Amino acid sequence: LGRNANMGSTCEINAAMSIWRRLSLFVLASSLCSCLCRAEDSAMENIVTEKKAEESHRQDSADLLVFILLLTLTILTIWLFKHRRFRFLHETGLAMIYGLLVGVVLRYAIHVPSDMNNVTLSCNVNASPATLLVNVSGKFYEYTLKGEISGSEVNDIQDNEMLRKVTFDPEVFFNILLPPIIFHAGYSLKRRHFFRNLGSILAYAFVGTVVSCFIIGLLMYGCVMLMKQIGHLGGDFFFTDCLFFGAIVSATDPVTVLAIFNELQVDADLYALLFGESVLNDAVAVVLSSSIVGYQPEGDNSHTFEAMAMLKSFGIFLGVFSGSFALGVATGVVTFTKLRDFPLLETALFFLMSWSTFLLAEACGFTGVVAVLFCGMTQAHYTFNNLSPESQDRTKQLFELLNFLAENFIFSYMGLTLFTFKNHVFNPIFIVGAFLAVFLGRAANIYPLSFLLNLGRKYKISSNFQHMMMFAGLRGAMTFALSIRDTATYARQMMFSTTLLVVFFTVWICGGGTTQMLSCQKIRLIGPDGVERRSTKQESVWFFRIWYNFDHNYLKPILTHSGPPLTATLPACCGPLARCLTSPQAYENEEQLKDSDSDLILNDGDITLAYGDITVSTDATGAHTSGTPVGGVAVNSDEALDRELAFGDHELVIRGTRLVLPMDDSEPPLPLDSRRHRHKNETMS
Amino acid sequence: LGRNANMGSTCEINAAMSIWRRLSLFVLASSLCSCLCRAEDSAMENIVTEKKAEESHRQDSADLLVFILLLTLTILTIWLFKHRRFRFLHETGLAMIYGLLVGVVLRYAIHVPSDMNNVTLSCNVNASPATLLVNVSGKFYEYTLKGEISGSEVNDIQDNEMLRKVTFDPEVFFNILLPPIIFHAGYSLKRRHFFRNLGSILAYAFVGTVVSCFIIGLLMYGCVMLMKQIGHLGGDFFFTDCLFFGAIVSATDPVTVLAIFNELQVDADLYALLFGESVLNDAVAVVLSSSIVGYQPEGDNSHTFEAMAMLKSFGIFLGVFSGSFALGVATGVVTFTKLRDFPLLETALFFLMSWSTFLLAEACGFTGVVAVLFCGMTQAHYTFNNLSPESQDRTKQLFELLNFLAENFIFSYMGLTLFTFKNHVFNPIFIVGAFLAVFLGRAANIYPLSFLLNLGRKYKISSNFQHMMMFAGLRGAMTFALSIRDTATYARQMMFSTTLLVVFFTVWICGGGTTQMLSCQKIRLIGPDGVERRSTKQESVWFFRIWYNFDHNYLKPILTHSGPPLTATLPACCGPLARCLTSPQAYENEEQLKDSDSDLILNDGDITLAYGDITVSTDATGAHTSGTPVGGVAVNSDEALDRELAFGDHELVIRGTRLVLPMDDSEPPLPLDSRRHRHKNETMS
Repeated sequence: LGRNANMGSTCEINAAMSIWRRLSLFVLASSLCSCLCRAEDSAMENIVTEKKAEESHRQDSADLLVFILLLTLTILTIWLFKHRRFRFLHETGLAMIYGLLVGVVLRYAIHVPSDMNNVTLSCNVNASPATLLVNVSGKFYEYTLKGEISGSEVNDIQDNEMLRKVTFDPEVFFNILLPPIIFHAGYSLKRRHFFRNLGSILAYAFVGTVVSCFIIGLLMYGCVMLMKQIGHLGGDFFFTDCLFFGAIVSATDPVTVLAIFNELQVDADLYALLFGESVLNDAVAVVLSSSIVGYQPEGDNSHTFEAMAMLKSFGIFLGVFSGSFALGVATGVVTFTKLRDFPLLETALFFLMSWSTFLLAEACGFTGVVAVLFCGMTQAHYTFNNLSPESQDRTKQLFELLNFLAENFIFSYMGLTLFTFKNHVFNPIFIVGAFLAVFLGRAANIYPLSFLLNLGRKYKISSNFQHMMMFAGLRGAMTFALSIRDTATYARQMMFSTTLLVVFFTVWICGGGTTQMLSCQKIRLIGPDGVERRSTKQESVWFFRIWYNFDHNYLKPILTHSGPPLTATLPACCGPLARCLTSPQAYENEEQLKDSDSDLILNDGDITLAYGDITVSTDATGAHTSGTPVGGVAVNSDEALDRELAFGDHELVIRGTRLVLPMDDSEPPLPLDSRRHRHKNETMS
Repeated sequence: LGRNANMGSTCEINAAMSIWRRLSLFVLASSLCSCLCRAEDSAMENIVTEKKAEESHRQDSADLLVFILLLTLTILTIWLFKHRRFRFLHETGLAMIYGLLVGVVLRYAIHVPSDMNNVTLSCNVNASPATLLVNVSGKFYEYTLKGEISGSEVNDIQDNEMLRKVTFDPEVFFNILLPPIIFHAGYSLKRRHFFRNLGSILAYAFVGTVVSCFIIGLLMYGCVMLMKQIGHLGGDFFFTDCLFFGAIVSATDPVTVLAIFNELQVDADLYALLFGESVLNDAVAVVLSSSIVGYQPEGDNSHTFEAMAMLKSFGIFLGVFSGSFALGVATGVVTFTKLRDFPLLETALFFLMSWSTFLLAEACGFTGVVAVLFCGMTQAHYTFNNLSPESQDRTKQLFELLNFLAENFIFSYMGLTLFTFKNHVFNPIFIVGAFLAVFLGRAANIYPLSFLLNLGRKYKISSNFQHMMMFAGLRGAMTFALSIRDTATYARQMMFSTTLLVVFFTVWICGGGTTQMLSCQKIRLIGPDGVERRSTKQESVWFFRIWYNFDHNYLKPILTHSGPPLTATLPACCGPLARCLTSPQAYENEEQLKDSDSDLILNDGDITLAYGDITVSTDATGAHTSGTPVGGVAVNSDEALDRELAFGDHELVIRGTRLVLPMDDSEPPLPLDSRRHRHKNETMS
């Protein structure tokens, strides 16, 4: 019963290949060396594979349906919570709970025995090619590589098909679900307070994340050493693994906190600091972790690693940044045309350009997620101004919806995976160490940096702000996506399990305690004139003013219809060039020069005006609720918070729901008509 | 160098299995029979498969990028065409041309040699399981079945990797791209004229499509017989294949024609007949073709087939219809709640419910596309009225965008595939026969049915309408998706190639000649009061009136907030039940009883009013263009068409572009505020 088997791989024909195999290469199709195993039993030759494919398709549909229904359930419960004004549990936390429940059911209640669909071909092929052709009794079937499976999983596959079925390819998170989330974050980053605090945000995001990564890495290495000493370590765990863990848990995602900030209209500077930091440190963490992974094969614990990795990561980062910036600008130039007559075309183009940024970056070997982030930021700053009002609404609503769906899907999958992932390694020492390290890493990011930044800032980051930022260091979608990406080794499995717990804890405990923390830290609400006026000079302005002037006088007029015409800003000698670059619309706009960022000119008068269009609104009872300029009293205590909680609640809840991230706030002053329309909508909804 | 190979499949353990294999089953893991081929050469044991996976991912990104850029290019050119008012080429035709160009480049200009990524494991395994585990030197890799490849393709794979890379899994069209298109069609079917012509539309869609399918099938069978006689046939071609071909080319898709109708405001009844027929015959064609395929294995040419297939298809059709209707109603009931306060949640829920309809239908073994169609129709009729005005806009815009992207993607892929598909079988006799059969099949659908329908209709379908319907029998996305789904056999390949040509011809020639055909057939434009009044009684009304009354008095009040409160429509004895089922809002609405379908009550006064909100608009020069009631002269000649072409062009182009399918028209009368807003938008854009 011995069978002949000639096999080989076309992928890596190297010198180690035996002579016989070389011969077989010549005998068979030039570049194709096929393994022919002939078996005597060919009775089942004409099995209806279509039936099986259909069955598999139906099963897939049913599995996906489970997730869709999970999301539907989440939405209905969120609605209930919003309706009843429960603020202790955010939709993402809720999605995780539902995910957990479904995970428990799948794991313990339903036991679908293997549907006998798998064949294990255990051939010592020298490589695992991306595509495999299997010759089944003369018919060729194409198989694509899904991924490596650990030895233990091979038996699991036969054990519970259902669990494996609901497991998504980890790359799905990175290539499908994360991009809309990150893009949406970048797209809604166009906030006046963001640019005002740019220096501090960059410091927290870049320096802070790197510091946090290394602190956590070092602490975890100590922890791992301890575990090795007392024999609690079941596999390899290198220093690079520790650093990798540090990088992935350094990506904060305070979506829960920000949603509450938004509902309660918490101080805009604190909001900008937190949001800006969380958006940018995602990018830093991705690049950092990928550069750490990239260097892993060279040496497991060499000290030359760090400088090289930093250099490489810095290089990648710069490349991605400039590449996506260029693309974003290109999009801006494209939408500069009269496409604004056709909102559908415009929205479609906008969507495609954002997506192609991601794909282009991935095709070039950059990190698509980072490219998409900066693309979103550039588009919000320039392209958005070129869009027709209808397209502005459409794009915002589209990305808002995509963000909402992707985020809730990721969080519910997170809950699910706690029970359905089969290779969890829960090590108590590692978990305790990780929680400690995450806490200390965050502290080492926030407090020393705040101290240093306060030396340069005119308006200091107060200690209650620092505590709040410390507290708001939630871990979320990005941390999860990075940790699930590779769970092949023991170290990675332990990291993944621990990361899950960190995410759960921070989202539920820190997220749920935000309102308590806010009132405990006596964080004031925004709005009062006095507070605003105080915060206008908080950043050392010279760098900022140079950039602003350049952007306002040259970039905006060239790339958008807003801003002053170039003929006014360029010297007289450049007249013809200026006339050629300026669109007719820019002249029309000349009288209404105040574009969306005009309050960046640190002019006190502007600020009251800039807030004017978002705060005055009518609540359910028809009473006039005004958090801002109208009621110009300094509200600097938790009494105000309580009052806000009790009184203006209905209005705030509505606004908070309509836009999970505060986009209303970031809009440019629209033409009078559409502003009136928005007001109307608010009163109608 | 002989290697031991034990192999087996866990999927179909049948009696034909040899004793040795049974033994090996016991020896190894209970349900797992693995084939262990041990090779001596394991020098390349630790090959970095990650590198290859990364490379493959980058390549995939680049391939997808090609399509995205193709779509971008299409959008830019469409914009140019719309801007310059070229009406001879629709965006779908344009997408095909660009696809063709890229296909030529990929086929002849770029030659990427195989990247040596494939290994052919030619084992006489008895089945092709959905999942394959390959043991590569101790590590297990999971492979998923992509599909069967014909023998000739195996060499092609080595030949040009690029071509194979840009080939999508045919199921992508059915499971990802088609659903939004079909859903959007159903969602925009809420037209007063559709319900007025319901009887005729159902006759064309059901009877007509079946007639057309059998006529084409019979003609093609004659053609195939002829080819067999003169030896032009290179493979099997059964009668069921002919019928299958008849079914797939019976699905019409006059998207090009309808876009022009919409721009030119062509007669609303003709529009409703064409659009309604095309939407429903897609569903009929899908079910028909799948039932024909389902019966193929039993007997290739048996005559018992037909009755059975019809029975089965009828059963499936009824099941799918009732299932999706139930789901649609369920969605309506869900959105009946106060979710309308939160547009984002509402839109997300709406989207998820539509998607779950598709998945549920697929999981139950129904046809998801058909389910989605009826779901869309039900949602447009009931759920839409429950949505908040903002969600109504959001959902429409979302599905409009998805439809636009999916449609253009399919058409550009169609162009691409003419050159990149490797197994084309172009047979001149078959092609000529097919064109003839398609023409005759369409004629056998339209003319006899119109004659029969005219016997019962008060207002006849005039002969120029019949010619126009004949002419507008374009084939499009559905025909393509059905024909590319299976291209394994010779017959299917010949069908696929021929279908492509039919689609190209009809979209370019018939689509491009629509305006000429309209003026040649002297089709009048809608609007003139006289014409409208004439067409109000065109359908034999008894069936319609019964349905309308039931729907208006009972279904609408129960399922939506619109319509009269049940307390008014139900007999007095049902008072408590009625009060319990009626929402408070319905009472509020009582004074504004005229809901979106109120003009279905064949009341002449309504019609002028119903059109009032869409036709008065200002064109670019500020002059008052009014296609409808204001200028109430009977415009019944091609002079009018020419006038419309020359004069009201700008306004019409804008409207036609904003909504490729006429949704403006199908909206319910919104509260006064939002209607004013829409007007403003039109003037602004």
